[in-house]
Amino acid sequence: MENTLKNQIILDSTNDFSEPTLRRLPVYLQYLKTLETRNVSVVSCSQIATELNLNPIQVRKDIETTGVAGKPKVGYELKELIANIEKFLCCHIKNEAILVGAGHLGYALLGYHGFKEFGLEIVAAFDTSPDKVGKFINTKSVFHTDKLEEIIKRMDIEIGILTVPAAYAQKIADRMVSAGIKAIWNFAPVKINVKDGIIVQHENLASSLAVLSKKIELKINKNI
Amino acid sequence: MENTLKNQIILDSTNDFSEPTLRRLPVYLQYLKTLETRNVSVVSCSQIATELNLNPIQVRKDIETTGVAGKPKVGYELKELIANIEKFLCCHIKNEAILVGAGHLGYALLGYHGFKEFGLEIVAAFDTSPDKVGKFINTKSVFHTDKLEEIIKRMDIEIGILTVPAAYAQKIADRMVSAGIKAIWNFAPVKINVKDGIIVQHENLASSLAVLSKKIELKINKNI
Repeated sequence: MENTLKNQIILDSTNDFSEPTLRRLPVYLQYLKTLETRNVSVVSCSQIATELNLNPIQVRKDIETTGVAGKPKVGYELKELIANIEKFLCCHIKNEAILVGAGHLGYALLGYHGFKEFGLEIVAAFDTSPDKVGKFINTKSVFHTDKLEEIIKRMDIEIGILTVPAAYAQKIADRMVSAGIKAIWNFAPVKINVKDGIIVQHENLASSLAVLSKKIELKINKNI
Repeated sequence: MENTLKNQIILDSTNDFSEPTLRRLPVYLQYLKTLETRNVSVVSCSQIATELNLNPIQVRKDIETTGVAGKPKVGYELKELIANIEKFLCCHIKNEAILVGAGHLGYALLGYHGFKEFGLEIVAAFDTSPDKVGKFINTKSVFHTDKLEEIIKRMDIEIGILTVPAAYAQKIADRMVSAGIKAIWNFAPVKINVKDGIIVQHENLASSLAVLSKKIELKINKNI
């Protein structure tokens, strides 16, 4: 609990520090799991840093956040490190989600295998298209959006994934929240407004593109 | 040039500071453009912060990075602010890209309208499926992947977007780089290795999910 409170303070006060750390930890985890399949038992910061093209000091700081301590000149026990990162990332907490908007992006997310190991399971999808309603996408039932509130309540779902066109995002978000959704992962390219206490994680591809463009520009300027 | 060098140093030395700033700037820009359509001429940090649920000090710091100065107790000239952010984000530099893997995620990216205002245009797509090759997706031609090198070279393309399954990602990345691609935006859920000097921006949905899960966990702990 003490550790959680500490993280909470970090998250609230200096979001810049913690969010990049949180974003890197799943990448470490994916790499560490590949080491596990190769029967590796100990791993060092510099090894992780080299493999993932990161700064070893950064890697050490990130890992410290999860509360695991390495042995000097030896490194981390791989199993302990994996367990700690998984615990920190709440992989053990099972979160069920519904997805609204079974267009191409919705399809892609319904077929994404990487969510389950982080505790997220999409249990149902919603759409209005007669071509999709009543069918299955990657073993998930597609219901008509008319049934959204009923199914959220009946299944007691707290996470909603929004993959509808921008014009429908606010309306669907409102319906999600009124039915009991507590956190929305918004892939629609538009800001949505929700009441206090509801978590919104906005996925903005333009933001990633901005990072990429800047890296390209800096590289061009370096080469001149 | 001085400003660019400064930013370069920030990016190289304290990536944690700059990347979140870069990620927020497109979000500010989208909001500021909605103000422009409403004939607003001046905007303050606190107004932006309130609208986007951010800390006003953070907003001011981010905007300072772009080199624009606000007037105390007044705010920023909207047109100047938009122009500065656009300049900083290199929106004026036109970048052409090709996309490999016209599955659901590829389709979604080919139909995404938000890239063009940040300077990126996807000019062609590649796939191996006979159902897709020779057709158009959102006005973009889909070529057989056999033609990848030829078209990259002929059109002098430097950015490649990878939306193939994980198992094919490294092989396609190698082919992109050998044909002249300088930057890869990787949506495949796997790390790719490229030679020094090639930019890779890895898009990891698990990383976003980690941030969301942590926010949910912290909220639950707060409520207890």
